[in-house]
Amino acid sequence: MQFNKKHILSLNDLSSDEIETILDTAESMKEVSTRDVKKVPALKGITVVNLFFEPSTRTRSSFEIAEKRLSADVLNFSASQSSIVKGESLVDTAKNLEAMGASIIVIRHAMSGAPSVIAREINASIINAGDGSHEHPSQALLDMFTIREIKGSLDGLNVLIVGDILNSRVARSNIFGLLKLGANVRIVGPGSLVPKYFSSLGVKIFYSLEDSLKDVDVVIMLRIQGERESLKYFPSLREYSRFYGLSKDKLKNAKKDVIVMHPGPINRGVELTSEIADDPNAVILDQVSNGIAIRMAMLYLVASGANEK
Amino acid sequence: MQFNKKHILSLNDLSSDEIETILDTAESMKEVSTRDVKKVPALKGITVVNLFFEPSTRTRSSFEIAEKRLSADVLNFSASQSSIVKGESLVDTAKNLEAMGASIIVIRHAMSGAPSVIAREINASIINAGDGSHEHPSQALLDMFTIREIKGSLDGLNVLIVGDILNSRVARSNIFGLLKLGANVRIVGPGSLVPKYFSSLGVKIFYSLEDSLKDVDVVIMLRIQGERESLKYFPSLREYSRFYGLSKDKLKNAKKDVIVMHPGPINRGVELTSEIADDPNAVILDQVSNGIAIRMAMLYLVASGANEK
Amino acid sequence: MQFNKKHILSLNDLSSDEIETILDTAESMKEVSTRDVKKVPALKGITVVNLFFEPSTRTRSSFEIAEKRLSADVLNFSASQSSIVKGESLVDTAKNLEAMGASIIVIRHAMSGAPSVIAREINASIINAGDGSHEHPSQALLDMFTIREIKGSLDGLNVLIVGDILNSRVARSNIFGLLKLGANVRIVGPGSLVPKYFSSLGVKIFYSLEDSLKDVDVVIMLRIQGERESLKYFPSLREYSRFYGLSKDKLKNAKKDVIVMHPGPINRGVELTSEIADDPNAVILDQVSNGIAIRMAMLYLVASGANEK
Repeated sequence: MQFNKKHILSLNDLSSDEIETILDTAESMKEVSTRDVKKVPALKGITVVNLFFEPSTRTRSSFEIAEKRLSADVLNFSASQSSIVKGESLVDTAKNLEAMGASIIVIRHAMSGAPSVIAREINASIINAGDGSHEHPSQALLDMFTIREIKGSLDGLNVLIVGDILNSRVARSNIFGLLKLGANVRIVGPGSLVPKYFSSLGVKIFYSLEDSLKDVDVVIMLRIQGERESLKYFPSLREYSRFYGLSKDKLKNAKKDVIVMHPGPINRGVELTSEIADDPNAVILDQVSNGIAIRMAMLYLVASGANEK
Repeated sequence: MQFNKKHILSLNDLSSDEIETILDTAESMKEVSTRDVKKVPALKGITVVNLFFEPSTRTRSSFEIAEKRLSADVLNFSASQSSIVKGESLVDTAKNLEAMGASIIVIRHAMSGAPSVIAREINASIINAGDGSHEHPSQALLDMFTIREIKGSLDGLNVLIVGDILNSRVARSNIFGLLKLGANVRIVGPGSLVPKYFSSLGVKIFYSLEDSLKDVDVVIMLRIQGERESLKYFPSLREYSRFYGLSKDKLKNAKKDVIVMHPGPINRGVELTSEIADDPNAVILDQVSNGIAIRMAMLYLVASGANEK
Repeated sequence: MQFNKKHILSLNDLSSDEIETILDTAESMKEVSTRDVKKVPALKGITVVNLFFEPSTRTRSSFEIAEKRLSADVLNFSASQSSIVKGESLVDTAKNLEAMGASIIVIRHAMSGAPSVIAREINASIINAGDGSHEHPSQALLDMFTIREIKGSLDGLNVLIVGDILNSRVARSNIFGLLKLGANVRIVGPGSLVPKYFSSLGVKIFYSLEDSLKDVDVVIMLRIQGERESLKYFPSLREYSRFYGLSKDKLKNAKKDVIVMHPGPINRGVELTSEIADDPNAVILDQVSNGIAIRMAMLYLVASGANEK
């Protein structure tokens, strides 16, 4: 097992070997969660700060549980309580947390690239928990882990990503990661949300959901970010849902054993019907469970990577 | 010691044996709080989520301290930071927390019945920390524990509950619990806050505080929920306080060794005078201390109950 | 090592021996932070509550990390979520936390003297984390620790405090502490922010930054509290910065080996230029690191002090 990265900032940065090391490590971490005492002392005495500048439940909670299972000392730090309000710069905030003894900083920020800016300036390890519309590595890694767990391998699979590709950091990270592990990636959505230049990344672009579903092994539904934002890109949620919402009926175009994924939280009746959300094909809660294992692996590996430097 | 319940949702649901098991277990837990190291490893490696949809200091803090004394990994999850804002359903939120590995979810919600709805849908244990105007089991249990500790037994005691019976989940849980353990329960307050149909539960209704206090062993004062809300039910706080506020003078109608309780936070000068609040008859801070022991017992017992299933 | 205080409320209250005991203890605590496992079991099973009525990142986070390194059970309690909103008195809130088993309460409050009021009423140990414009003992202690670490001793040093002396609890605590350990203290700022009556404390007053810097060993820059507040006291931030902002050029008036301190968060370009903030003379991040050690020492000593009583 080789992992020499001190930070995990993007899947674009990681080699396929590094991605596979994370997935393999997550497998061992998942075993911890099946024990009676779901805890290992790997990060005992290590301070991890969750530095979240955007509201988040799911991702922050998942990181926090992962950190506690590794026995880290956890400090939650949200923007509203923060010195940022007092005019401190982002890098100064991070340097202060490092000076207080933070060894790992998990950061979410509305600005694409914010985690990289910090990583260049400090010695603590940085994990990107979502930056603007850039990347969301832990989400893509848990998606890939879930697919690999069910399908055995990603190589040669047809994976379809549906929805707001333009604004989605989840889509971007998945595209980089899935292609590196050998999957064929398709994207589909309304023209306003599926920019043509994505084809240069090596993905195939569709505008009809029915067409795009043909022979697909995995469907990754993206979240529609709330009515107000989306109305900039298409006439109404109802219209979106009619053309790009996933139903039992449309799913028949895919392979029999297709799995349906969603990063959550789901809007029942918008991106997918309740029928799909509660179907055995949907692995949405498996994704959530695997998120703990993936984040434990990421934390564990950057901590070891940092020690080696 | 027998406790086969996986959830604690209401005192109406529990048998007198089950209630006594909780009170007995809380006695052992109280002993832990007298030790130098106030900690036992009972829930080590177990993740407990405090899922609070209403603001709360006292109850959430009490549960959090109880959880940490049992060595649980604690995750606080408040509505304002939550995915609820993003339109996720309550059950989906709970299922996500379970998927992240939560074994016990302590929930407070403005909607009566919300904890029961969740309990039907997930495998984690649910503890109701207050739902609408329905029940507040941990408060009633700590009240009963405090009474039993001081009076030896609840059987045959005259217990008076004073105030906003109509809207009080504390009143409702206490009525169910106290009657099951053999106490005689009286309620008193303005007609608008003391509905006649409560007599069908087996309590005696009064409208005069002086009359209701006669021969009483225990007075449980309820909280007036803030001026605006209460003005729907009576002309002014001053008027309420004059008729239903407890003073040293009025208390003379009760037994000599009467004890005065209040779930807190108290409004000095409204429900009771400062003279009463600071009197040795008042056991308000004992209630707070016992709250830790009761909540440790509840957490411990649902964790064991869950394992047996 | 002697420390019989149960509370740490102000440096005005502490003897020079007690201050030196805190600094010496912090030295041992600092060693803990160099270990692989940065944790000692000194406060295991002890509940520490951070009761913050003013927003704070830096100080609260620093205390929280210190508490976790001592293995305490930590409860964060901020005013917005609190019973205060429901009309509970400050002392009642503190008594409730004590009843829940809090052994140490770290309090920040906008009202000068609030921590002392609480200390008189309860048995738990109180640590003042900043009260109004009164004192901020942990900040002054970490400043003195940092100076002593670099200069060897405080005795005979010329220390200059620059800025809003009038409203600064940091200035007040530093003045008391520095004088007790034998330093010569100067203060400088606009007349509206540097009241003449401070000379009765034993400090020397200046109105010209250039003059005040002569032969100075240590400069402590204070924070300007935000444009709106400050405009009550001087025409504009630009004007303030021109006369009382620290630049490389002005600093030449001081001793060669002068060190520059700031309690943070810094406003680059207001109290000091970026050139100064990032200069090796500036020890701002050392202050932050030392803050952990100082707070560990304070917590540890009041816990022992409390046991002895």
